[in-house]
Amino acid sequence: MRTERTQVAIVGAGPAGLLLSHLLHRRGIGSVVLEIRSREYVERRVRAGVLEQGTVDTLMEAGVGERMAREGLPHHGIELRYGGRGHRIAFERLVPGRRITVYGQQEVVKDLIAARLADGGRIDFEVSDVAVHDIDTDAPSVTYVDASGERVRLECDVIAGCDGFHGVTRPSIPEGVLTVYERDYPFAWLGVLARVRPSAEELIYARTERGFALHSMRSSEVSRFYLQVEPDEGLEAWPDERIWAELKTRLETVPGFTLETGPIMEKGITPMRSFVVEPMQYGRLYLAGDAAHIVPPTGAKGLNLAVADVRVLTEALVAWFRTGSAELLEGYSRACLKRVWRAQHFSWWMTTLLHTFDSDDAYGRRLQLSYLDYVTSSEAAATTLAENYVGLPFEKGPHD
Amino acid sequence: MRTERTQVAIVGAGPAGLLLSHLLHRRGIGSVVLEIRSREYVERRVRAGVLEQGTVDTLMEAGVGERMAREGLPHHGIELRYGGRGHRIAFERLVPGRRITVYGQQEVVKDLIAARLADGGRIDFEVSDVAVHDIDTDAPSVTYVDASGERVRLECDVIAGCDGFHGVTRPSIPEGVLTVYERDYPFAWLGVLARVRPSAEELIYARTERGFALHSMRSSEVSRFYLQVEPDEGLEAWPDERIWAELKTRLETVPGFTLETGPIMEKGITPMRSFVVEPMQYGRLYLAGDAAHIVPPTGAKGLNLAVADVRVLTEALVAWFRTGSAELLEGYSRACLKRVWRAQHFSWWMTTLLHTFDSDDAYGRRLQLSYLDYVTSSEAAATTLAENYVGLPFEKGPHD
Repeated sequence: MRTERTQVAIVGAGPAGLLLSHLLHRRGIGSVVLEIRSREYVERRVRAGVLEQGTVDTLMEAGVGERMAREGLPHHGIELRYGGRGHRIAFERLVPGRRITVYGQQEVVKDLIAARLADGGRIDFEVSDVAVHDIDTDAPSVTYVDASGERVRLECDVIAGCDGFHGVTRPSIPEGVLTVYERDYPFAWLGVLARVRPSAEELIYARTERGFALHSMRSSEVSRFYLQVEPDEGLEAWPDERIWAELKTRLETVPGFTLETGPIMEKGITPMRSFVVEPMQYGRLYLAGDAAHIVPPTGAKGLNLAVADVRVLTEALVAWFRTGSAELLEGYSRACLKRVWRAQHFSWWMTTLLHTFDSDDAYGRRLQLSYLDYVTSSEAAATTLAENYVGLPFEKGPHD
Repeated sequence: MRTERTQVAIVGAGPAGLLLSHLLHRRGIGSVVLEIRSREYVERRVRAGVLEQGTVDTLMEAGVGERMAREGLPHHGIELRYGGRGHRIAFERLVPGRRITVYGQQEVVKDLIAARLADGGRIDFEVSDVAVHDIDTDAPSVTYVDASGERVRLECDVIAGCDGFHGVTRPSIPEGVLTVYERDYPFAWLGVLARVRPSAEELIYARTERGFALHSMRSSEVSRFYLQVEPDEGLEAWPDERIWAELKTRLETVPGFTLETGPIMEKGITPMRSFVVEPMQYGRLYLAGDAAHIVPPTGAKGLNLAVADVRVLTEALVAWFRTGSAELLEGYSRACLKRVWRAQHFSWWMTTLLHTFDSDDAYGRRLQLSYLDYVTSSEAAATTLAENYVGLPFEKGPHD
């Protein structure tokens, strides 16, 4: 076994782990990123694509936003479509000066990997047998087998658990430490990536009696769609023709709208889940992003929350390494959780507002339509949607 | 059997029936109001006490608001109390120029009865065996036994069902005509009227881990309180000492607040229910107020919705009697239901925001607290509460 040493061992090369490594580097703190997948895999993994203004600002300030600024699509509104009509939530009027940027998560990942490697950063792809040790001591470490098959012990001061919901870091925290909050939804999302130009300029969130559908995009040539499906359905139940037929049924509900179709490049089914652990830390292990919390994707908050966590963690680690003060590190979880719970609530709210639930609950369906009528007619209610969707501003950290 | 005739037979002498009779009289249309209870009973029946601006305006314009203007308490905000803090929802800032008036429903009833009798109006109290007939014909009628024991057949052009949730008019509509929408809640409200000055100037909606509590008032000497209780509890489980102890536990949660106590004049337990039938009419029978829809009292909407229904019904009847045009009458239900469903949603929203539900649902409880934090910190979210609480403006009718 080879033994190495770094300041921060980062488990997971998703947006959280890569951005943390990059931000720490810019503040003079060393890290090693461990990833069980290949570089090619993580650079192609299709995930979120809606960046809040604060996420965009963070990437720009960190010098990794050049391509995003060029290729990302700024959006100033979304459409809620139901009852045969479309209703635009106009960010420019409701939350002046704030917008979202459509830019695929895998593009962010590509940009961050390129930046890390250009800066001489260390990312070990295709590792296996990752395990964290002694997280409740001053000398934690991570062991793993690297891509060449060699066992490695990586000694460090701190471990960042950025390895997602199914990762190894959170389960390594002793039982009884974490409080788990969770909720499942009685449906899943079928996600589709298609080589076809978007059928509208903005995202369309459609509520129909047959279920929810989302029209989104990744570029001027690539569209992204989601369909509410049964939680236990497999992809084999969804041949391409059925996907297009169902998308047409759920989206072609307003006069003049035609769904453009094209070759489907990728499809997958995602369960819908809300999940939070508290605290997001134990000893020298700090969880960030999906490792600590999951939201249903309806509110487009997952990636943005990960970036917010990483901002807070970076400032806390910088203060600790520079001054020895653990105050910010000790407050990490508390500092993150306020935003986490706001996003949890908003994601639940968007999900329940737009999805079809128990078809026997006639009262609930009318309640939902009444709420939609309200959100699309009251300036105050529309503003609650808009201000959450574009994202709450970051609280200024001590070093901002 | 005695046979009589009127234009509009009104079943029920609550606020809906009495106001309808009064408004019709002012437009030259005759009516008879039938009530199974005594005048004394309906004048003492403690119910709602929060009047929207539109309700106050309606009563003032109708010449029955003099005492309300003198004795009613104008309120410009309410308090949401949770987590050891109070948060004021300031109507004067959020919805400028709009307010609520605290004035007991039984006071409105007293004023309306006095006005009807002063105008020579006919209210038959203490009737029994009320039944409606031939509502799907041009010659409907109501039969009943009057207070003296004589059977009466009241022929009429139209019947107004203002006899509340448990009344006889709605069940007289043939099966299959009405669609019922309903939801029950897993708790009830214990309501208390006490001879003690209010402990605060405004209403306090308190969310605690032990359940909801509401501090309200009827005058400078009479306080009104509500406690969330188990749905199957009886009054025998709630001796006065327990009521005061529980109110103190749930309300004395902020520094400097002391609950004043005094003799309890009345107490009762109310189930919490959401209920709507559509349409609100069949043939020559028109339902108004609780006969057609029930809301949980958290949003203080029940009485206000009844007044809104009656405004719409009055205009429709005036048009029909004057011109023979049934257009407004045919659209009565549709015209009312938009407001009804907005109030249904708001009442459900306030109820779920403030009550304690399943104690095993830790996620739900954190979601609720996150929502409360949002409502009390976002101007837009606070405005959604305020604009619904003070009530949506009336759409102008053709004769307004």
